[in-house]
Amino acid sequence: MSTIDFNADLGESFGTWEKGADEAMLGSVSSANVACGFHAGDPLTMATTVALVKQSEIALGAHPGYPDLLGFGRRRLDASGKEVAAYVTYQVGALLGFAHQHQLALHHVKPHGALYAAALSEEPVARAVASAVAGLVPGTFLYTLPDSEMWKAAVEHDLQPVAEFFADRPLRPDGSYEFFRWRDNFDLDPDAVAERTLRAIGEGKVRALDGSDLEVTVDSVCLHSDTPGAEQLGPHLRIALEAAGWKVAAP
Amino acid sequence: MSTIDFNADLGESFGTWEKGADEAMLGSVSSANVACGFHAGDPLTMATTVALVKQSEIALGAHPGYPDLLGFGRRRLDASGKEVAAYVTYQVGALLGFAHQHQLALHHVKPHGALYAAALSEEPVARAVASAVAGLVPGTFLYTLPDSEMWKAAVEHDLQPVAEFFADRPLRPDGSYEFFRWRDNFDLDPDAVAERTLRAIGEGKVRALDGSDLEVTVDSVCLHSDTPGAEQLGPHLRIALEAAGWKVAAP
Amino acid sequence: MSTIDFNADLGESFGTWEKGADEAMLGSVSSANVACGFHAGDPLTMATTVALVKQSEIALGAHPGYPDLLGFGRRRLDASGKEVAAYVTYQVGALLGFAHQHQLALHHVKPHGALYAAALSEEPVARAVASAVAGLVPGTFLYTLPDSEMWKAAVEHDLQPVAEFFADRPLRPDGSYEFFRWRDNFDLDPDAVAERTLRAIGEGKVRALDGSDLEVTVDSVCLHSDTPGAEQLGPHLRIALEAAGWKVAAP
Amino acid sequence: MSTIDFNADLGESFGTWEKGADEAMLGSVSSANVACGFHAGDPLTMATTVALVKQSEIALGAHPGYPDLLGFGRRRLDASGKEVAAYVTYQVGALLGFAHQHQLALHHVKPHGALYAAALSEEPVARAVASAVAGLVPGTFLYTLPDSEMWKAAVEHDLQPVAEFFADRPLRPDGSYEFFRWRDNFDLDPDAVAERTLRAIGEGKVRALDGSDLEVTVDSVCLHSDTPGAEQLGPHLRIALEAAGWKVAAP
Repeated sequence: MSTIDFNADLGESFGTWEKGADEAMLGSVSSANVACGFHAGDPLTMATTVALVKQSEIALGAHPGYPDLLGFGRRRLDASGKEVAAYVTYQVGALLGFAHQHQLALHHVKPHGALYAAALSEEPVARAVASAVAGLVPGTFLYTLPDSEMWKAAVEHDLQPVAEFFADRPLRPDGSYEFFRWRDNFDLDPDAVAERTLRAIGEGKVRALDGSDLEVTVDSVCLHSDTPGAEQLGPHLRIALEAAGWKVAAP
Repeated sequence: MSTIDFNADLGESFGTWEKGADEAMLGSVSSANVACGFHAGDPLTMATTVALVKQSEIALGAHPGYPDLLGFGRRRLDASGKEVAAYVTYQVGALLGFAHQHQLALHHVKPHGALYAAALSEEPVARAVASAVAGLVPGTFLYTLPDSEMWKAAVEHDLQPVAEFFADRPLRPDGSYEFFRWRDNFDLDPDAVAERTLRAIGEGKVRALDGSDLEVTVDSVCLHSDTPGAEQLGPHLRIALEAAGWKVAAP
Repeated sequence: MSTIDFNADLGESFGTWEKGADEAMLGSVSSANVACGFHAGDPLTMATTVALVKQSEIALGAHPGYPDLLGFGRRRLDASGKEVAAYVTYQVGALLGFAHQHQLALHHVKPHGALYAAALSEEPVARAVASAVAGLVPGTFLYTLPDSEMWKAAVEHDLQPVAEFFADRPLRPDGSYEFFRWRDNFDLDPDAVAERTLRAIGEGKVRALDGSDLEVTVDSVCLHSDTPGAEQLGPHLRIALEAAGWKVAAP
Repeated sequence: MSTIDFNADLGESFGTWEKGADEAMLGSVSSANVACGFHAGDPLTMATTVALVKQSEIALGAHPGYPDLLGFGRRRLDASGKEVAAYVTYQVGALLGFAHQHQLALHHVKPHGALYAAALSEEPVARAVASAVAGLVPGTFLYTLPDSEMWKAAVEHDLQPVAEFFADRPLRPDGSYEFFRWRDNFDLDPDAVAERTLRAIGEGKVRALDGSDLEVTVDSVCLHSDTPGAEQLGPHLRIALEAAGWKVAAP
């Protein structure tokens, strides 16, 4: 039986504002990327989310972003490599604090939103992320896309890159994801999402926006907990993965 | 030769705004309380400050505060014990991240400003601080005042309380410090500050605002790096301590 | 036919985080208190909300709070009178900006959460709020409770105080509201809320938590748009008010 | 006697952190650009600064920036036109609040830092700024550079563009300013700054970084209050302007 990881961003509430189908996703995924207070999350939310991750016996990851609560970390900020490295150290360190209090180890790091996107194509950003993570948690897993600057920087810093597939976002013909303006271009029917995902991880193929087939490498499937319908999509996809013979587990 | 600790709050700049005679104080003190981003400090400032603390071979402490940059953490915020615990965990965890990258251990924690003051007299706040610190860095030193709720909570959580004396703040007749409105009531002449401090640590006595003598217990002398004239006061006090036969070293 | 005002706090989303049954409340109330970015709301949300208020042809009010997004402005912050006055000027000024762009006049101001509560009992806070409002919008309406410091300060500054009744919060026997810990002590059934409100505005009587009857004066009924079930409570209460013969209109 | 405007950014302190030679500049300039809380400034600082501007009898301008205290508004943020318009409305509205309390009219608007730079070359940003300003203060002056997108958008929105010359920043051979990395490439000697400025406004010529001469049009000379030595540079430049026969006054 082959193994596949299933990850989601969790703990993206802020103060009294709630976001994300965290409860449903905690029971569906094998690894959680927990927001660290810069794009979402706050100390109390982090404390709660880390406790739930421990209770759910899934892998704990840090999900650092740009300091932009107003924009949910989805807007490119022209921060220097030194700034990015400090932001990542600060956020991953803060999450490690909560992990330590629950005797939990940190399993992985996954940048969020615009920081994730910038690290794919910009070497200074990618290296800043990788060096900060390697300085804090040597050899840990770093979730990103294959053939990206982030992937290269992870390897260079002796981190273990994990190849993601986004189950709820369309791919452009050039192989890049449409992360932010996708609602009119994607079928969120649970069966369609499951079928697309199973093809991606089983055959390594996925249909792009123009109808062409792209080849993908997948170590981990990502579903966003704030995608509309996530509370159904998450459990449905978990069941579909297992029904198709996959063992769902973190690397 | 007897030993005394000398501590200062450092790294209290924010972004492009600079504050504090950090350079002079780094060469004067034996232990540094580094701001963690909630009342002052930011990731880049923390990275720089921790590097300087390591280079100066002094003890590294975390200096968490209320989330109030606008008020520099000097205003009481009616946060619950759970909130305070999460705030302290977050901030100390973040500082531990930078410490870890420099292979530095955390030596102590000292709450800042209004959080320091609240923890002196309010049991829920004191316990929240102590439990967060104990969960992260068991047995570490916690800087506070004797006979306070914070002292008791530190002992209860198997932390090591360290008794501070504030060299640059007046004492009221009841033994409490006037932390925030003191400028008209205090002689900042370097010789006067040194004499007052030497008497406090040598004889255990200090003159209160009404002229009466109070008894004090002192493990560590604190001088704020943003007190006017700190760049002279710090080195002057260090020299005075050593000239009087004290060995200046962290506990 | 007698007239009564019906008000609600609106625009309390923040960035991508949504809060409040704004759509249902916009169709129910006669006056809206729009969050101004310190406890909730943000520039884009304010722009949208002011446009909706104009379209709904209801009265526009400013809803300034303490600078505490993390705590939704519900936590007492020990800010000085000068600070409070500046915070209110800043927030009301910002809302006036959006109002001006839509050729809307500002009808009233209502402090939020912990600032509302502090202004009830603390004269310096009440005067700071009143002086800031009077300096910006002379003679405007100020929503508060009768016999409070805020009421007195409003009169002193030639503002027009408006007596509120909170339809969704219990009253203690001393006549004060339980604003924040009320969920176990209050019947949110729409009929019960309507009945309670109609008695308050018709007979001037309301049942306190201990079962005793209190006398109340009511110019405006408030229902919070983030009270559970607000999307039903709001329209239901509006219909009940009109069915009982009240004309619902802002003062 | 010809007239020239002299402007400076003021009120760029934040909370307890001070920045800028405001006192010296208030006595030197004819118009002030007051920070509005997003990149610098805060309600109390704005209240103080507006009062000083009134007392100094100089023209009051709003200086809105990106929401980025950490980066002092100097970092490009990928905000949409709708977001930028809302940010400008919010900030200018807030400043109008303080102006109104002092019976001061708003004389002009000048975007700050990365927002200023983005508005020079990006049409959507420029139009967002212009439409927000025109909606709030129709026909007001907008400080920018000639031949920029911001200039064009200002004209389109019936605002009055004012051509700036930066006395303390070098020009690249293509006519663009080096705003952020200039310290090694610029002579801050007060006589050199004055001579350069007098040539720019008198002859319309200025030496670029490569030694070539560029033609410039100047309605207003800008000197930053946080440029090193601003407390001398400001008064020196004012005296030099008047000694050369210029009347220093806002448009």
